[in-house]
Amino acid sequence: MINEIRNHRSVRSYTGEPVSEEVLDEILTAATRASTTGNMQLYSIVVTQDAEMREKLAPCHFNQPCVVQAPVLLTFCADIRRFSLWCRQRGAEPVYDNFAWFVNAATDALLASQNAALEAEAHGLGICYLGTAIYTARQICEILSLPEGVVPVTAMVVGHPATETPLTDRLPVDGVVHREIYRDYTPEDIDRIWHKRERSEETAGLLEANGLPNLARIFTERRYRGEDNLAISRSYMECLREQGFFNQ
Amino acid sequence: MINEIRNHRSVRSYTGEPVSEEVLDEILTAATRASTTGNMQLYSIVVTQDAEMREKLAPCHFNQPCVVQAPVLLTFCADIRRFSLWCRQRGAEPVYDNFAWFVNAATDALLASQNAALEAEAHGLGICYLGTAIYTARQICEILSLPEGVVPVTAMVVGHPATETPLTDRLPVDGVVHREIYRDYTPEDIDRIWHKRERSEETAGLLEANGLPNLARIFTERRYRGEDNLAISRSYMECLREQGFFNQ
Repeated sequence: MINEIRNHRSVRSYTGEPVSEEVLDEILTAATRASTTGNMQLYSIVVTQDAEMREKLAPCHFNQPCVVQAPVLLTFCADIRRFSLWCRQRGAEPVYDNFAWFVNAATDALLASQNAALEAEAHGLGICYLGTAIYTARQICEILSLPEGVVPVTAMVVGHPATETPLTDRLPVDGVVHREIYRDYTPEDIDRIWHKRERSEETAGLLEANGLPNLARIFTERRYRGEDNLAISRSYMECLREQGFFNQ
Repeated sequence: MINEIRNHRSVRSYTGEPVSEEVLDEILTAATRASTTGNMQLYSIVVTQDAEMREKLAPCHFNQPCVVQAPVLLTFCADIRRFSLWCRQRGAEPVYDNFAWFVNAATDALLASQNAALEAEAHGLGICYLGTAIYTARQICEILSLPEGVVPVTAMVVGHPATETPLTDRLPVDGVVHREIYRDYTPEDIDRIWHKRERSEETAGLLEANGLPNLARIFTERRYRGEDNLAISRSYMECLREQGFFNQ
């Protein structure tokens, strides 16, 4: 297996050591080699290196220390703007300000981001995705001056790991793969798929720390609660509307 | 740069030679090593190898010959179902049937897909993403028996390339990267960014074949037309609703 894929982990603690411009350029170039919708490259990558800008963005990412610690923050944006500007400048009428093209542009941005992640790791760097980019998309738009047609989809810190991070467990591969058709999960399947994780020491520690009887309730009552999920849904949808992805 | 990233191309012509189960397993395992939202793995991968099933799916991908030629078709789905079933089975109340969690689950599916693409290429295979997965999502749901909480986000053929495919050009890296804030594009920027592509022999050939004066109009009038884009927007949104991603 490709080394970087096998050894990928989310690194949450960084030294302040900068990432060289040469390496950053390799990472960004790697991002651009990913497939994109019709080779339209419907994304932009905003690179944040300025310490003040990282401080400003930190609250958008719930003040996770890595946002300030790591020397580079990459914000991957769905971008129908650049392509639409080009079309208009050529007398062509772009109709990309709609939901399907948000999905296409988000897809382009996300495939590019995964290339960037792996390329960073190939240079001995660590990365951590910040899913918070969609929670606080409107604030990020403001801070990064994202104009109409551009919206954050994900973000990632990049830097030199301060500590060793162990690999995270995953569900068994056959728990997420279906052959020919989707075979719905029986209660026994569900028990089997989560068995190892539920019985792990890590889970035991989490249950004790949270005073809850099982891992699922840590997810629904602590990490990703219904009211928060619905608030994020509304605010991200609203941000997409404001940024011009629902004009039609 | 990671070899597979540097040499990635979309392969559209395949020999019928099968992909071994060992290699397929490596590809699928690589997919599961990607980061996911809270390590929730909100995706499923449906593997289509059966020739009859590939024939059935071909119209969903506009009968591109590669869908029938290539021995493996992977459909990457956003999946909040498995996680929600697990929660309910543990007495936890999942509230993931909403737009934010479609975005999270789609993100998980897409990062996994890019790992799969690169890992396939590491084994000498070719791949081609099929963006058509969102155009015909409802039909794909039917053919693959995708239940509530599961929706296709992208698809990919995998197989042994029948021919050499040249690398595709990309916009200059500085045309898609912004430092600190988004610097909006001036008309001069737009001209500069597309200059090489517009002057290429490939473009000259396309203009002649299409009888149109510039590449932008090939995109807006032939490849991705307004009325089609809006129809896809509506049908994918409707499919998300039917599959239970807009319950709240």
